[in-house]
Amino acid sequence: MKEHKYAIGLDFGTLSVRALMIQIDNGEEIGESVFEYPHGVMEEALPTGETLPPNWALQHPKDYLEGLVYTIQEVMHQSGVQAENVVGIGVDFTASTVIPVTKEGKPLCFLEEYEHNPHTYVKLWKHHGAQTEAIHLEKVLKEQYPERLAFCNNDVSCEWMMPKIMETLHEAPEVYENAERFIESMDWIVWKLTGEESRSMNGLNVLNQTFYEPETGKPSRKLLHVLDSKMDNFIDDKIQTTTKCVGETAGFLTEEMAALLGLVPGIPVGTPMVDAHSCLFGGGVADAGELMLVIGTSFCHLLLGENKANVYGMGSCAKDTILQGYYTYETGQSGGGEHYAWFVENCVPERYEIEAREKGISIHQLLCEKLKDYKAGQSGLLALDWFNGVRSPLMDFSLKGLMLGMNLQTKPEEIYLALIEATAFGTRFMVEEYEKAGIPIKTVVLSGGIPLKNPMLVQIFSDVLNKQVDVCQTTQAGALGAAILGIAAAPFEVTGYHNIKEIVKKLGKRKEKVCIPNEGNVKIYNQLFEEYKTLHHYFGKGINDVMKRLNAMKN
Amino acid sequence: MKEHKYAIGLDFGTLSVRALMIQIDNGEEIGESVFEYPHGVMEEALPTGETLPPNWALQHPKDYLEGLVYTIQEVMHQSGVQAENVVGIGVDFTASTVIPVTKEGKPLCFLEEYEHNPHTYVKLWKHHGAQTEAIHLEKVLKEQYPERLAFCNNDVSCEWMMPKIMETLHEAPEVYENAERFIESMDWIVWKLTGEESRSMNGLNVLNQTFYEPETGKPSRKLLHVLDSKMDNFIDDKIQTTTKCVGETAGFLTEEMAALLGLVPGIPVGTPMVDAHSCLFGGGVADAGELMLVIGTSFCHLLLGENKANVYGMGSCAKDTILQGYYTYETGQSGGGEHYAWFVENCVPERYEIEAREKGISIHQLLCEKLKDYKAGQSGLLALDWFNGVRSPLMDFSLKGLMLGMNLQTKPEEIYLALIEATAFGTRFMVEEYEKAGIPIKTVVLSGGIPLKNPMLVQIFSDVLNKQVDVCQTTQAGALGAAILGIAAAPFEVTGYHNIKEIVKKLGKRKEKVCIPNEGNVKIYNQLFEEYKTLHHYFGKGINDVMKRLNAMKN
Repeated sequence: MKEHKYAIGLDFGTLSVRALMIQIDNGEEIGESVFEYPHGVMEEALPTGETLPPNWALQHPKDYLEGLVYTIQEVMHQSGVQAENVVGIGVDFTASTVIPVTKEGKPLCFLEEYEHNPHTYVKLWKHHGAQTEAIHLEKVLKEQYPERLAFCNNDVSCEWMMPKIMETLHEAPEVYENAERFIESMDWIVWKLTGEESRSMNGLNVLNQTFYEPETGKPSRKLLHVLDSKMDNFIDDKIQTTTKCVGETAGFLTEEMAALLGLVPGIPVGTPMVDAHSCLFGGGVADAGELMLVIGTSFCHLLLGENKANVYGMGSCAKDTILQGYYTYETGQSGGGEHYAWFVENCVPERYEIEAREKGISIHQLLCEKLKDYKAGQSGLLALDWFNGVRSPLMDFSLKGLMLGMNLQTKPEEIYLALIEATAFGTRFMVEEYEKAGIPIKTVVLSGGIPLKNPMLVQIFSDVLNKQVDVCQTTQAGALGAAILGIAAAPFEVTGYHNIKEIVKKLGKRKEKVCIPNEGNVKIYNQLFEEYKTLHHYFGKGINDVMKRLNAMKN
Repeated sequence: MKEHKYAIGLDFGTLSVRALMIQIDNGEEIGESVFEYPHGVMEEALPTGETLPPNWALQHPKDYLEGLVYTIQEVMHQSGVQAENVVGIGVDFTASTVIPVTKEGKPLCFLEEYEHNPHTYVKLWKHHGAQTEAIHLEKVLKEQYPERLAFCNNDVSCEWMMPKIMETLHEAPEVYENAERFIESMDWIVWKLTGEESRSMNGLNVLNQTFYEPETGKPSRKLLHVLDSKMDNFIDDKIQTTTKCVGETAGFLTEEMAALLGLVPGIPVGTPMVDAHSCLFGGGVADAGELMLVIGTSFCHLLLGENKANVYGMGSCAKDTILQGYYTYETGQSGGGEHYAWFVENCVPERYEIEAREKGISIHQLLCEKLKDYKAGQSGLLALDWFNGVRSPLMDFSLKGLMLGMNLQTKPEEIYLALIEATAFGTRFMVEEYEKAGIPIKTVVLSGGIPLKNPMLVQIFSDVLNKQVDVCQTTQAGALGAAILGIAAAPFEVTGYHNIKEIVKKLGKRKEKVCIPNEGNVKIYNQLFEEYKTLHHYFGKGINDVMKRLNAMKN
């Protein structure tokens, strides 16, 4: 009897890490384990008691290591898989989640002399302390390298790696000085597993392509000098520049780590990637023209394309970061599931809550049930999906929500419907921009828990976008994508797969043609989308800045 | 010991009639009785079973007579007042609520041969069957008498008397032919009480000034001919033209009616008026420059002025209809209390309902409690009060609601606040139009149940309008106004009052300076009102007709 082989995907999220064990020939999920970070997101104080400024968000690297050990031990135990049958490990991680370490890879916050200094901890992706630096960087780039900004909507985000490091340079120069490396947490955890330091092109380039030369994969001294003369030697001093591409082997499990995890030493560890990108693989997307929408609290749009293109409102565009030879375009919507959740939590009357309890269904399900015979346009409502500001295309968080068309017969489910439609219109806006820029979109793949639970929403996206919609059939697309990276790191002789694309096509959990567009609704939504665009233009592009003024007044 | 004297006010509303007994020297309410119309509003079928077309709303005159007898007997019984101490009776009534009768005053629907014909019943104010006729009238007037339309916003409402009568002419010519009179129900009930037929200038002119010559108080034959040649003799044939002004005695109680009611024959009955207008007297308003806002499900704005003026968006403007020598300007908002009620019914979550129950307060009170420390602008929200369409100034019921500025922290109470502010902005819009047209407004008087229950709302109106706000201290301002008409009908020797103005000033239940504007809020609301006007202009005046298009799509 042939023994099955397995891979482990490690999915480092914002609040926890998850290990997923899959069988490599069919993708069957054999075991799963989750570890919540004991320190969670540190927003108010360090473990040593020092309080943090507003807008900070740190993590403790100790949590990552503990989680790594716990989840792998647990998933091995749970699944009963023999260690020798695990052929590879892959990692996905939040980003940019950056940590200063010694040249041996020891986080500065592990050293007693630094444990009171907040800049020595992990700056989590949503750490917003580097706003001043982001503004400075944007200004410098606008003046001196305007072409660099064209591909990221003329915007430098304080969530990127570079502003976070500059924040350390400015506020804690001694930490900057003594940090021998600044490293993405994804690369650090792989370093811990393999004993070898390298950088994933995915992490580096997606988040930093504005600063990095496409030819060399690093920022030029000239640019660094312009940004801050104290950073002239930044690359040579602080960044190890061995870069690896997604699909490549980053290294092999050390003896020490293998013993700790209960695995066989020497098994390959894949080059890691950003968590949202890993969903692409888990969802079975590895071709140009297939738009993946990760439908979470917010929406992430990911698309592979064969050409570089200047898309209005694009979040980022970088080459070779997901699949070699392809560009990765990334855009997004700052609200999504959060809109629906806000509505259900705040705007649904008691009689609905009672009805849902009596029927033993969620409020979302109840609202969908009440809407089951609705046709496009029937509610008379139209909304802008801006309750949480706008990411693509306007990148403006002072914009806010809008709903119009209400009358005194308007029902709660109709408002809910309008909110879902609004998020679909927001997606269509970017789909049209991609297509205008010559990047065709053949299929849309929805990923995340919501599309699995809400078939009405899937149909609305199909009707609004006028596209076939496929749905990713797991809520663990990220961890599955990570496990795929682990398989890709192992040789053909072991796995039987020639390359990562082949693995993705075989194991990615994508159900095709879950919805095809309803012609009648498509026609109406075409009209409604024109209305959406008119309002988008009027309120979003400076014709009537009432939302910004109200927001300023409120604050 | 001097014996007190009393008057009875009869307030004929949409669903019931109320009798209020007051003491004439101090306005004390001695007794009150309500009678619900057994036939209510007939919208689906006649009592004889014939079904009615959509948009119809009829009443049965029998209900009015039964209610008259029941409520007066009951209020006499309840109060223990001696019949000889009742010095007068006054009436207010919904309008235009029109009824075809014989020249003896017998409703045609009382005749067996007509009881199956819906056109022989009372067409209630909200009977909307005459839409075709209203459109025709508007067209004819626009072409031939454009100046007539200027004073009613270029709009003929199907709720007026003339279209309702023309509807009868077109759809039931035999009823038109055999109706010896078409009469407002207010005049008909006074006829029943006094045995004398006359017409109140208030009812005639307010609702029909577009057709009536100001000099003669009746439509010219020429105009009638243009409207419909079959109506050439309409006035001579169908309308008794003895008109009386508000404050005058319409007649004296007949022997027969006195016996039925338990009153003394010969006591004076006042000239009746429209129910909303009667609130003006009940609220103590009998001077130019005092704007009364009747805050009900919708808002009615009533204002006396000394000059004729062309106010943008005015609903109607007529002379001598309330006080001789004064113009009555009338505008309104089609939503008001209904907006707030819709919100509370549909958009407040269970936890709020539970909290209100636990505290033993209404949801409205709970929301106000949560808003008690709010300042203007703090919610970040702005709404248009168009959920039920727009009466003044745009007279457009295809316009709908709008709310903007929501984010994912927006609370239900903030949306409620924005709705209240929106209705206040809607009022301010008209206040500014009055003032632009040279009709100054010194004070605003709020009338109705809501201002008595919701002090926050009163303060918001004061802050948004930047005016002292007085509040009418009774929810029965209409019935009180009717009782005042009863007192005015009696001679000075009996009442000690010289004229109606004097009675209103003495007995109208108006509490002065309930709110004065809060300076800080006024400043912010000035800014927010500019935003409101911009949106009003953009969505209401054809720049972006999205609301109309959505509405058409919905229907």
